[in-house]
Amino acid sequence: MVNIAILGYGTVGSGVFDVLGQNSETVERQAGQPVKVKRVFVRRDYPSSEADPYMTRDIDDIMNDGDIRVIVEAMGGLESAYAYAKRGLSLRKHIVTSNKELVADYGAELLALARDNGVNFLFEASVGGGVPLIAPIVRNLLFDKILYIEGILNGTSNYILTEMSVGGKGFAEALREAQTSGYAESDPAADVEGLDACRKLSILLSLASGCRAVWTDIETQGIARLTEADFLCAKSLGYNIKLIAGARLSGSSAEAYVAPRLVPYGHPLYSADGVYNSVLLGAKAVGNVMFYGRGAGKYPTASAVVSDVIEAARKINENTGIYWSSETLDILPPTRAERRMIRAERGEEFEAVAARLWPGAPRVSIKHCQRETAWLTEAEDSSAVREKLAALEETSPGTRILSAISIIGT
Amino acid sequence: MVNIAILGYGTVGSGVFDVLGQNSETVERQAGQPVKVKRVFVRRDYPSSEADPYMTRDIDDIMNDGDIRVIVEAMGGLESAYAYAKRGLSLRKHIVTSNKELVADYGAELLALARDNGVNFLFEASVGGGVPLIAPIVRNLLFDKILYIEGILNGTSNYILTEMSVGGKGFAEALREAQTSGYAESDPAADVEGLDACRKLSILLSLASGCRAVWTDIETQGIARLTEADFLCAKSLGYNIKLIAGARLSGSSAEAYVAPRLVPYGHPLYSADGVYNSVLLGAKAVGNVMFYGRGAGKYPTASAVVSDVIEAARKINENTGIYWSSETLDILPPTRAERRMIRAERGEEFEAVAARLWPGAPRVSIKHCQRETAWLTEAEDSSAVREKLAALEETSPGTRILSAISIIGT
Repeated sequence: MVNIAILGYGTVGSGVFDVLGQNSETVERQAGQPVKVKRVFVRRDYPSSEADPYMTRDIDDIMNDGDIRVIVEAMGGLESAYAYAKRGLSLRKHIVTSNKELVADYGAELLALARDNGVNFLFEASVGGGVPLIAPIVRNLLFDKILYIEGILNGTSNYILTEMSVGGKGFAEALREAQTSGYAESDPAADVEGLDACRKLSILLSLASGCRAVWTDIETQGIARLTEADFLCAKSLGYNIKLIAGARLSGSSAEAYVAPRLVPYGHPLYSADGVYNSVLLGAKAVGNVMFYGRGAGKYPTASAVVSDVIEAARKINENTGIYWSSETLDILPPTRAERRMIRAERGEEFEAVAARLWPGAPRVSIKHCQRETAWLTEAEDSSAVREKLAALEETSPGTRILSAISIIGT
Repeated sequence: MVNIAILGYGTVGSGVFDVLGQNSETVERQAGQPVKVKRVFVRRDYPSSEADPYMTRDIDDIMNDGDIRVIVEAMGGLESAYAYAKRGLSLRKHIVTSNKELVADYGAELLALARDNGVNFLFEASVGGGVPLIAPIVRNLLFDKILYIEGILNGTSNYILTEMSVGGKGFAEALREAQTSGYAESDPAADVEGLDACRKLSILLSLASGCRAVWTDIETQGIARLTEADFLCAKSLGYNIKLIAGARLSGSSAEAYVAPRLVPYGHPLYSADGVYNSVLLGAKAVGNVMFYGRGAGKYPTASAVVSDVIEAARKINENTGIYWSSETLDILPPTRAERRMIRAERGEEFEAVAARLWPGAPRVSIKHCQRETAWLTEAEDSSAVREKLAALEETSPGTRILSAISIIGT
């Protein structure tokens, strides 16, 4: 019998309680022994909840209980989560978390602490919600050379982009709808500004490289400036727009970014809509591999947490060896030449100047706005495209660049 | 140090030798100890091969060597593979295989033998080639109630279908091209008749249900009867045609099939083209999850084998508990009502009769063949559709049903 404690009884904490309760037989079979929730740490009452008999407001009831071998951290936030994770690991309790801030900021330290104490720090639910991702990377891919990561890692922004693309809504309207439907928080900054995706990418990069990828080193751009016109032009040219977290690894460094990207029809990431997440990995021997599923939501996330609880129960006296060093990974912005869709308001002599700068580029116009146009460039590096855009604005007075979005994988 | 032997030095066996050699450092880090190929069992000489010094034609050199703890079975075929796997497990050697015939036919027995001997029978590479699939199912999903499986499990037939769909080729031409490109064997029966996909589905079903799914119990239909006209009509209606292996689990039984299916645009399986495999799983808590990657090929398959070798090395004195019983799973053909695309050659009074039987059904015609037409039905069970088709042929003399293909997930 393995006794566990859950810290927090919000969406994830209560989901874990439910999933463990509903699947106790199969959990026991997979874990090799029964898994029982002994304590739930809360900061307020949940009087009519099934978990009520287990609830405590005193963290010491959990930390000082030698019978509790696994702690599920489901509080969110950073300070208390970090303090409790650290204290728990030092007391030789396994920590399972869905908290990407915690893993992104303190992963290296907590993994080392887990290793020193012969227990595990597990975080399957921190990236990709319910999608099995961390475990298959560790178990199946990590011996192979991981060359790139390209993914849709934030369900909220993907929901908003899907509403904009399929529903033809503007950003503000799509965001409001996401908030009404409970897919976006009242302060959506971390999701729409790309910070959540950036933290998740840093976790995958740390795992793949074995070094600490500092998320603030990753050039990150959100989705708030995308407009209906961007989607209309992209669609006419055969693309969808997704918020992509991408990285290429080489030796001891990586090029990484989070930004909107055009995804061509037929690309494996093209059809990940709504709150779905999708992560494409390229490794030397295995080639391309993709994982897809619900990136958020109570039960998908709880399911990932429970899979880690089972793993902790199976390895109750053993560290599984998941690890990255505290040495910092060298992270650069992408330097490769990329194809782009550029959208602009036409000024004087626009046609002649544009034809000279981008000869033969496929073009689309926007029905409702005669002055706007968009075109696809050949692969150019960012300094080349910057020069051309400056030349365009200079030699075609009145021309205004509205957006420039790179095409994925070019 | 873990010493291993590889049985066979064909595509998979030599791939495993290469991948282990090229990744010895990371393999050692993941396995917790060095992994060394000590012997390669062959039936002919490979004089200029790097593996030459390790080669033997005497299986007893491997079976009687107590230092060899892991055997990679990469011979293919059934009889010797089965005999060696059984003998190896009885001698407390771990067996890793990519051989789906072996797993489909003898999985229950070999898993039980592995368990009795405290070793492992591992088969990640037997389904989905390089796609991490078996491990994440076991590690992340098996405690959850798996409700359905829907996948593209055979790379060869998917390559042929892609050539037919994208390249507009007929079946025979696409098959010849697959053979020329090395994607199809000279006897392509197992691939194009769906038997390979059927065996793989039976492995996933056995894993998901915990009971032995006998592959010959699964109603299986291949792709040889699909025509260019089927693809043209499907495309006009917004679909692609894929060979789908599907199953729905409920209690102690399952409905399962292997057959061509229409996959709608936007469906996660829609964009798996060429030799790629894609498996969509639905489970109660986690919802939909999909795994995608190269379903065949030397290095992808070798990569999956090596991930199992690492797992065996990590669990060298421990059975991981992967298991299904020898009790047979009750398998039925699908009974749910399904939408279908029906294609027919029009006879007398066809329009009036069809409009009465399928009022308002979306229709397409085929440019080059005025007498043919295709339409989409509402969801109907198979007996209802059979009756209607009989009625159509009876009351519209000269009408000939050419094909009836169900739409996935309806």
